[in-house]
Amino acid sequence: MPRQTGEATRRAILDAAYELFYRKGYARVGVDEVAALAKVTKRTLYYHFRSKDDLLAEVLNWQAQLAIVHIRKYENKYSARDARKFVTALFSEVKQWSAKPGWSGSGITRLAWELADLPGHPARQIAGQHKEDVQAWLAGMLAKLGVRSVRERAKEIQLLLEGAGALMLITGDRGYCDVAAKAARRLL
Amino acid sequence: MPRQTGEATRRAILDAAYELFYRKGYARVGVDEVAALAKVTKRTLYYHFRSKDDLLAEVLNWQAQLAIVHIRKYENKYSARDARKFVTALFSEVKQWSAKPGWSGSGITRLAWELADLPGHPARQIAGQHKEDVQAWLAGMLAKLGVRSVRERAKEIQLLLEGAGALMLITGDRGYCDVAAKAARRLL
Repeated sequence: MPRQTGEATRRAILDAAYELFYRKGYARVGVDEVAALAKVTKRTLYYHFRSKDDLLAEVLNWQAQLAIVHIRKYENKYSARDARKFVTALFSEVKQWSAKPGWSGSGITRLAWELADLPGHPARQIAGQHKEDVQAWLAGMLAKLGVRSVRERAKEIQLLLEGAGALMLITGDRGYCDVAAKAARRLL
Repeated sequence: MPRQTGEATRRAILDAAYELFYRKGYARVGVDEVAALAKVTKRTLYYHFRSKDDLLAEVLNWQAQLAIVHIRKYENKYSARDARKFVTALFSEVKQWSAKPGWSGSGITRLAWELADLPGHPARQIAGQHKEDVQAWLAGMLAKLGVRSVRERAKEIQLLLEGAGALMLITGDRGYCDVAAKAARRLL
């Protein structure tokens, strides 16, 4: 079944690329390194992906999809509760996540910063779309929980999430998650 | 006057390095490129800076100092006014700054993201210290303007500033500055 094998190989390359890009950023990772980690030849890598830029775009696309699936898993968990508890749980998840060894913040935010000078890069478009998808999800959750002006509230929560990610990364102080959660609750 | 010339050369190298690092990030800029833009030989560059990592640390140190001088210029401008007006003016400055061609957010935040996997890098230490200095300045300004719980308020404003920087960069929508300003005012 060559097609199935092809899909598995493609997935192995995406996995390896994500792991390396997340760990070291985009510029410092070479295609050779991705191929080596995925246990494929460079020729095979280029059979599945036209370029390193294409590979990055596909990695981000796939990660953005996974992130949405991941956050949707919490919908039922939160839907029976109130908006303040939802916000508390949201920042608490982020705080737990940030304690993982090697945590480097949102991979999507990080890639966007690394490609700050390339607004037309396909990976940048995917990053922008992903942040909008997360915001729409937040607004939908808040609406279900009886909050008003959900578009603005969702933007505020997203601002605080991005801010907490940046300041936790820069200062190493995970307490920013608690300050952000408290602010988000007061803004509800 | 060899000493003066040495200082001027050193400054030219720092200027060139900042311009290139800000435009393209750290990993994609080579020492040759910095030397070429500063119109010095690579040998001269290495006479003033031991390594590219050292150069980056010194660039960030110098930029962090400039940023503090820059924000302090606004002290008199703001001190006669109230805290809400101070916050409005602060986010309005950031919004104006973000409209500049080639704007890529805070250079210090960007470098920290690029070096996310290297928490011990000297540039990371400088970035962390800089964010704390900005926060202390914010808390001091808020205190002068009669705000209470200034440490927490300063952290919230910084979370919103960092969040606005990230989301403006990622989505291209400068309206996040207005949402952040409004949230910061409501949190006062």
